[in-house]
Amino acid sequence: MNAAATVVSVEDRLRIEELYARYAACLDDARFTEWPEFFTDDCTYRVVPRENYDRGLPLSTLAFESKGMLRDRVYAITETLFHEPYHQRHLITGILAEPADGGGFRVRANYLVIRTKSGSLSEVYNAGRYVDHIVDVTGALRFREKLCIFDSELIPNSMIYPL
Amino acid sequence: MNAAATVVSVEDRLRIEELYARYAACLDDARFTEWPEFFTDDCTYRVVPRENYDRGLPLSTLAFESKGMLRDRVYAITETLFHEPYHQRHLITGILAEPADGGGFRVRANYLVIRTKSGSLSEVYNAGRYVDHIVDVTGALRFREKLCIFDSELIPNSMIYPL
Amino acid sequence: MNAAATVVSVEDRLRIEELYARYAACLDDARFTEWPEFFTDDCTYRVVPRENYDRGLPLSTLAFESKGMLRDRVYAITETLFHEPYHQRHLITGILAEPADGGGFRVRANYLVIRTKSGSLSEVYNAGRYVDHIVDVTGALRFREKLCIFDSELIPNSMIYPL
Repeated sequence: MNAAATVVSVEDRLRIEELYARYAACLDDARFTEWPEFFTDDCTYRVVPRENYDRGLPLSTLAFESKGMLRDRVYAITETLFHEPYHQRHLITGILAEPADGGGFRVRANYLVIRTKSGSLSEVYNAGRYVDHIVDVTGALRFREKLCIFDSELIPNSMIYPL
Repeated sequence: MNAAATVVSVEDRLRIEELYARYAACLDDARFTEWPEFFTDDCTYRVVPRENYDRGLPLSTLAFESKGMLRDRVYAITETLFHEPYHQRHLITGILAEPADGGGFRVRANYLVIRTKSGSLSEVYNAGRYVDHIVDVTGALRFREKLCIFDSELIPNSMIYPL
Repeated sequence: MNAAATVVSVEDRLRIEELYARYAACLDDARFTEWPEFFTDDCTYRVVPRENYDRGLPLSTLAFESKGMLRDRVYAITETLFHEPYHQRHLITGILAEPADGGGFRVRANYLVIRTKSGSLSEVYNAGRYVDHIVDVTGALRFREKLCIFDSELIPNSMIYPL
């Protein structure tokens, strides 16, 4: 037997895959006010350049430490930030899950976000990996921790929407 | 329990995922004459810009209303349309399925099509989401309705092959 | 019943999907010395332009015929080849598996590799399909044969790392 394949049950694996599919659909539909509901109240959400992460440097491009901060971010995005809107399209693949110490699942996955600005062609925007801690909160899976570790230290223009 | 995860059985979810994998393989192999066989006789296939779809505007870039029309399209592609050939490569992710009223499944998924023209580098061609109605026809899953809702109102050159 | 969906068991399908996810994670983490361990001792690994493959031409861009040759390649990559390093990000989708004659599985999948060079934006690097023969070696799945059939005859600069 391939031990790695049996540590997380088939049902849990499909639930985890579905979580990522719903997460992508939420962001790509620009339903930003629903985005914080994918997280626990005491969540961590960070967007980190790969070079910093691999060297153990603490600097993040974005760092939020609670669902309240995520809601503030959504408010900023939708009400106050002056920016040119764009569409996102998430491709999330290679989901690998294992049980986490203390409960839930440690999950990593590759992501690619395609961006489409008004009047422009679709283009590669951001690629990297998620390193997440997912927990079951009364029957629904939520992110307790989500790290978006992106491969390029350059970002085309500013990063407005969540990854 | 995560209710959403249990509405469609494990077996049906894997059958649906396989349908999309075979659909992608068919188009990417340029086996266009097989493409209409993924649809029911009374199918709808539409390619729609996201802006139009989100505003409820009826205009489609392409709209076919039966398997016969799909076959006509394939004939046009392979026999009559003057165009520069290119390769397609479909990445289909984030498949979300739920039972449809009246039978079958409502499915949405993200797609990215990479295009490679002869003598050129591979490039982002079209990204968007599928919004589909899939039914079981004597044991095989087929598309009764397939909407390809693409993010960019611009398309690099003309769109020849199915998405 | 959809015959194709039931030929490979649910458990085997998930094991195969996990193999590809671990393969992608290994390469994208640049853990190249672990890469040969995904293969059998008598493996074949080839990188082939689609035009050559479809015409039955034998020429490969890269061709290795044993795990020892893969290890030599890793040594070359990590110790001797003069090249500008870059990050890879694999998106592997549309995995289709069927039992192989003589044991194991015939698998095809679409892949897209995003490349990020230092100081540059992420970009489409290579897209194509895997055509693989996977076998179970004392409980672990390994590639006995892996073909990386890429869509573009052009490659942006030289191809250093495995696909």
